[in-house]
Parts: sequence; C-alpha cells; structure tokens
Amino acid sequence: MSLAVTNIIAKDIRFPTSAEKHGSDAMHPDPDYSCVYVFIYTENEHLTGHGLTFTIGRGTEVVLKAVQSLEFLFIGKKLNDIFDDFARFWREVTSESQLRWIGPEKGVIHLATSALINALWDLWAKIENKPLWKLLVDMSPEKLVSTIDFRYISDVLSEEEAVQILKHNMPYRKAREEEIISKGYPAYTSSVGWIGYNDEKIRSLCREALLDGFTHFKAKVGDNIENDKRRLKLIREEIGYENKLMVDANQKWDINVAIEWMRQLSEFKPLWIEEPTSPDDVFGHLKISDALKPYGVGVALGEQCQNRVIFKQLLEMGAMQFCQLDATRLGGLNEVLAVALMAAKFHVPICPHAGGVGLCEYVRHISIWDYICVSGTTKNRIVEYVDHLHDIFSNPASIVRAHYIVPFESGYCGQMKPEVIETYEYPTGTYWRSVNK
Amino acid sequence: MSLAVTNIIAKDIRFPTSAEKHGSDAMHPDPDYSCVYVFIYTENEHLTGHGLTFTIGRGTEVVLKAVQSLEFLFIGKKLNDIFDDFARFWREVTSESQLRWIGPEKGVIHLATSALINALWDLWAKIENKPLWKLLVDMSPEKLVSTIDFRYISDVLSEEEAVQILKHNMPYRKAREEEIISKGYPAYTSSVGWIGYNDEKIRSLCREALLDGFTHFKAKVGDNIENDKRRLKLIREEIGYENKLMVDANQKWDINVAIEWMRQLSEFKPLWIEEPTSPDDVFGHLKISDALKPYGVGVALGEQCQNRVIFKQLLEMGAMQFCQLDATRLGGLNEVLAVALMAAKFHVPICPHAGGVGLCEYVRHISIWDYICVSGTTKNRIVEYVDHLHDIFSNPASIVRAHYIVPFESGYCGQMKPEVIETYEYPTGTYWRSVNK
Repeated sequence: MSLAVTNIIAKDIRFPTSAEKHGSDAMHPDPDYSCVYVFIYTENEHLTGHGLTFTIGRGTEVVLKAVQSLEFLFIGKKLNDIFDDFARFWREVTSESQLRWIGPEKGVIHLATSALINALWDLWAKIENKPLWKLLVDMSPEKLVSTIDFRYISDVLSEEEAVQILKHNMPYRKAREEEIISKGYPAYTSSVGWIGYNDEKIRSLCREALLDGFTHFKAKVGDNIENDKRRLKLIREEIGYENKLMVDANQKWDINVAIEWMRQLSEFKPLWIEEPTSPDDVFGHLKISDALKPYGVGVALGEQCQNRVIFKQLLEMGAMQFCQLDATRLGGLNEVLAVALMAAKFHVPICPHAGGVGLCEYVRHISIWDYICVSGTTKNRIVEYVDHLHDIFSNPASIVRAHYIVPFESGYCGQMKPEVIETYEYPTGTYWRSVNK
Repeated sequence: MSLAVTNIIAKDIRFPTSAEKHGSDAMHPDPDYSCVYVFIYTENEHLTGHGLTFTIGRGTEVVLKAVQSLEFLFIGKKLNDIFDDFARFWREVTSESQLRWIGPEKGVIHLATSALINALWDLWAKIENKPLWKLLVDMSPEKLVSTIDFRYISDVLSEEEAVQILKHNMPYRKAREEEIISKGYPAYTSSVGWIGYNDEKIRSLCREALLDGFTHFKAKVGDNIENDKRRLKLIREEIGYENKLMVDANQKWDINVAIEWMRQLSEFKPLWIEEPTSPDDVFGHLKISDALKPYGVGVALGEQCQNRVIFKQLLEMGAMQFCQLDATRLGGLNEVLAVALMAAKFHVPICPHAGGVGLCEYVRHISIWDYICVSGTTKNRIVEYVDHLHDIFSNPASIVRAHYIVPFESGYCGQMKPEVIETYEYPTGTYWRSVNK
C-alpha cells in the first residue's frame, strides 16, 4: 500500500515568553518562543505527519509563507516514492529551480524545508510504529545513508565512508540500545543563566539544578564583562569546580573581542565558549579556537549554522570542538544525519542545540541514535535541556536525574496538544486575541 | 527640514522570461526574472524612494512578506536621523531582536532588507539631486565609512583602514571622474552562452556582440562536459583568442568535480570559472582556486554570497580572484561598500554581478564609484551586462561600444515605468491575468 500526501496545513504558533525574559541573551533580549507547525495529511485519515521549525516571534509569518510556497512539491507525492530515494526527493525540494534563489539552503526557506521534512520523518516512523530513533537504529547502513544528499560535501565525506562508519558500529548496536534505555542520555541545563535573570534567581536555579542531578551548567555572557565575571563567580560559588560550566555569547563579538573577552573569563574554567561570533565565520572561529586552546576553552556552535556546507568547513578546518547542530535550522533530519556523520569522521562530539519549542523533543532522538549507531560514548557529549514549554506536547521530552529518558511513542515530534494550538496560534488564538484587544 | 517616512508599498513583479530560456543555466533552467519592488513614501509627496531586490519567480512572494515584516522599522523614522548614522540604523534593521533568528543577514530576510535599504539610498541621492555614484564621490571618506557596520569584519578591515583607502585616493577623484564620464565603464556580455540556446543562436550572438565592441564573453557550463567543449570551441571560433572568455557553472559541482571539469576546459583558456560550487563553501573555493592556479584560471563568485562575512573569508583566505558582489543579495549599498573596501585591501578586482531585473541599473553606480574613489583602474575589472529587461525602466542602463554610460539622473535605481508594474505585477497584473485565465 502506498499512501499519497493529500494536504498540508501550517500554523504560526507563538508563546509570550518575552514577558518573563525566558530565553533572553546578548542578541535576543526579548524572544517570544514560537514555531511554524506543519500537518501533512495522507490518504489514511489516521496517519498525519507533524513537524515544526523553531522561531522566536516576529518573522514566523515569513517562514509560514515559505512553507506554503514549498507545499506544491509535497502534495500528491507517494510516501513510498519519497522514502525509497529520500536523498533525491530532498534535493528536489532544496534545489527547486526558482525557489533556490531565495536561499539556497539557508535562512527562511531552509527553516521551512525543515518543518516539512521533519513531518515526513514523523510519518515514516509512525508507519513503522516506532520512535524515530528506533526507525534509524533498525535501518541498514546503506538505507540510512541513502537518505543523505552528498552534494557539496563529497570532498570531505563519501557515501562509502559514511556506510563504513555505520557498519563498523553494527556489532555494538544491541548492547548500546539496552544501555541507553536503562541510563538515559546526559543533559545539561541552560536555564540558570539567562541574561535577564537577577543574581538571586541565578543562585536559586543553580541550587535546584544541583538537587536535580545536573553536572553541566550553561550561562549567557557577552553584554558586559564585569557583569559576566560577577555572574560566573556566583555560579561557580554555587556549583563548585567539580561540575562543568559552559558560556554562550550568542554571536555578540567580533573575533578579537571574543579572544580578549574569553581570556578574561578563562579563570572560571569554562568548558566551551558558544557562538562567540557570526555563525557564518568559519575562518573566524578557527582563529578563536586556536587562540583559546592554551586556556583549555573549546569553541561550540551550530544552532545558527545554516547547512551542511558550513559544518563541513568548521569540522574539516578544526574550528569547532563541540558540534551543536540544530534539528530545525538544518533542512530536516536528512541533513542532520549528514552533519553527524561528518562530525564522527573528525571526532568532534555532537551536543545538539535544544530548548526553544520542540527542540528537546527532537534532539533526544538524534543523540540516542548517535550513541547507538555512531559514537558509542557519551564522553564530552551532552544535550541541552531547558525546562520550558514541554507540557504543550502530548509526549514531551522528560529527564530524570539530568538524563533524557528514551522515548517509546511512535513518531519524531512530541505532537502539540490541540488546545495549545487553539490558544497560541498567532494572531487568532484565544490568548493573542485576549492580549491584543 | 527633516522628512519622515510615511508609508511603504511593496510589489511582486514577474517577467515571463522562462518561455524563451533567457537566463537559463545549469541550476536554474527556467527562471522568470522577477523582483520585489519597494516604494518608500515621505512627508514630501514629490519625494519617493524606489528600491528592488532581484528574484527568479517562485519565492518572490516570500521576500515580499519579509519586506512587510520589516516595514515597521522604517515607518515614522526621520530620514536625517537615518543618514546621520546610517550604520546604526542598518544594524537596527539587520539585528532586529526577533527577526534576526530567521536569517541572520542571509537569504529571504536579507534580500528584503536590500530592497528597503536601496530605496533609502535612492531617496538620499534624490534629496541631494545627484546620481547615486556622485553622492558617494562627493562624500568625505569619514562620512562614507560611517554608513558601514563593521560588526564581524573588524578583524580584517578597521574603520581607520577604510578611511585611509579612501583618503589615499582623494587627490585623483576629479581627474578620474572626468575620465570615466568620457570613456564609460567596460562591460562584458553574458548573453551569448545561456545553456538553453542552440549552436546557431550562440554563433550569431557572438558575431553581434563582436560588432557591438565586446571583448569579454561569458558562457554557462556544467551540464555536460562534451556539450561544454563543443560550445566553448564554437565560441572561441567566433571570438578568437585575442578576446576573453569566462565560464560559469552556477554551483553545479562538488569540489573534486569542479577541479577535474575545469582541467578539461582549460584548453579554451577561460579567464575565470564562476560559481564552481556552493556559495557557502569558502574552504572549497580555496581548494579549487589553488588547484586551478597552474592553469591560469581564476575563481569568481559573489552573486549568491550572502553577506560581508562570507566575502571577508573568501578575500582573506585568497579563495576568490574576482569579486562578483551583488547589489541586491547583500543587505543594500552599505554592505556593498564594506565588501568593496575589503576587496580593495586584498587587491581583488570587483566585477559586479548584473543582468536579472535592475542589477545593471544598480551596479554601474558601484563600479563608477569604485573607479573614482577606490581602485583607479579598470584592469581586470569588468561589469556584467545582459541585454534584457532594460526598457522597463525610466532611466535604463545603457552601453555604447561595450561600455556602460555614466548616468546623470538623480537617484540609485532606474525607476520602473508605472505601466510595466501594472502589466507584470504578480498575479494581478494584466499580463498574468491574461495567461492564467
């Protein structure tokens, strides 16, 4: 039986997070965590794919428009034809002869692609009645690699090399699957150090997180060096030096400022500096990475790296010590798999970006697959966790003692509850109508 | 007197160029040359800014939506406040705290920024009653540099260095201005070698172009090596080896394919290979550039390079021998000036991308300014010219003996004729209504 895609509906969903400064950082002082949420309907009325792409308020309407402009490439297509040669279909979408001009493969059009492609993966996993990670784990190396478009990365990773990486790990899959199910996947918290929080709130959040079992803590930096020192000092007072501290500048700095600022913060022994500068600046990150090596500070980035071509360069040049790929900025899971396999080749650990809307729900699948089929270790690998906006999903990500629990529901995305969509659809949902009266 | 922006109207304008294969290449077989066209209205009803960004059909509606999402940053602003510190305003637009998530500074949101920012430059030039190039030429080095946002490029070009480049050229401005007015700026033709043209058409177009005085000819390659060899051979038969031939692959290849393909085409002595691979691949272009150096083939790119950060790396690493910046993919003239000054520092000639809709009209201003205030030479500098879609403008770009004539009308853009907008606005214009019946 081969089902066709019959219809697609996309919605602009926004949560008023800016009111309480959740998610505030040096470049985004007032995010309203949002998403474009996509339903892909099929000939089977009981089978609908859900997919989303994360945004932060204004601009979501532009991504929504882009989803609508891409829909014609999906509607009427048979799911079997797509999954039989997913790389070919992915290229048809990302290289559409007129639409590619407004990317290509970056920004708005790629965010839109991601929501749609992720909804297809959700469908595929549902058809197989498996959680997404298990769909991937049960695939042969050849089948998994057949979903990846190697255009523009073949100089660094060939199809054959990708298959070999997976084959090499085949014998360990079963044992690792059991292990990760029993232990869960380690998480770190970003919730203690948003720029907009006051000192008392930071201290109490650190204490709560320690009680919850967290060993890795991330703080935002970059607005004011003295302020950063005070905040990092008080976080270290709370968490000690036996736990890990990471810092995140959200692209605030130029290269030389990044180097000097981080030299000054190096006394607090951060494991990494995240997004010190523009996500487009591969060579700049190499300069920073080289300058901070003597201080034991690694460079982490990826949440705004636009596609596999940027990751390819960061990895090959040695400009990135932690790969924070983003499940909805890359063009859906196919491209995530490409980046994960390139990272494996260069022995760079994957620590996916999460938080926002739905990212924790997505990335747990990616890291669990990475553990079972690629890396076989959680050394230096840790997944972001932010304790906001999970109860909006029917099957939310959850953690126990700072470890993501392995999910067993079929599909990719924690589906959003219908009443949440009715409340927060922008601008017509009941919440937005009530505040915009 | 300080005027405020009162209203903005943006339109989706599309020309049915795909019907005749104009503009066809290896990655874009069927472009409908299009643009988002912006009017910025002011308190003076006789003073309206016009700006556009070039697109190729589908997707224009997404860029239009992005313009509408950016408008709130412009409406109500005083023009004097903008022009007094244009870099600050430009950063306000490109770093808007929520909208930057859907870029930042790339793709749809940056194309939209470009149309709006270019309309502001059009206004500024009209207020001064000068053509845009002359507005720039008459500015002090400090004033011109004050329009540039140096964020993310200060490690390679400081404000002081930029001022020095311009100061160094001050004594020659007057003489160069007279020269360029009398001689015009050299142009090359891309019209002879679109992929979709047959051999007879290519031959006759070469002959016409030679008669018109052209000495530089560009052909599309990348679909089929034997076909490319046949087409380049016949172009060389027509133009000889005393004229220059350039080739353009429009991102068709992976790195190793690009190197091998161009080794095979090197017998036809191309001056450059344009866009051999992904525009995001700085390190990849360096590999190609190094491999082709022994064959005397340079690497040219820029029409899809998303922002100054990518250009910075291409220039600093030596991955680009010809800088083909694009007046509407970069975030308006402010960023074009940044790239031009970085190119000057690294002694890389600027050969702007043109053709499409309105690009020839824009880039003549840029290259004329570059000649007078920065480079002082046309050696290895040549501006693309495509002989389509000029009569849609009130003040079209025009060439005589393969040289752009220096324009004297005030403003930046050749304004589009009102009847053209009525005919080709999509989908409501009279042309589109007639074909979509």
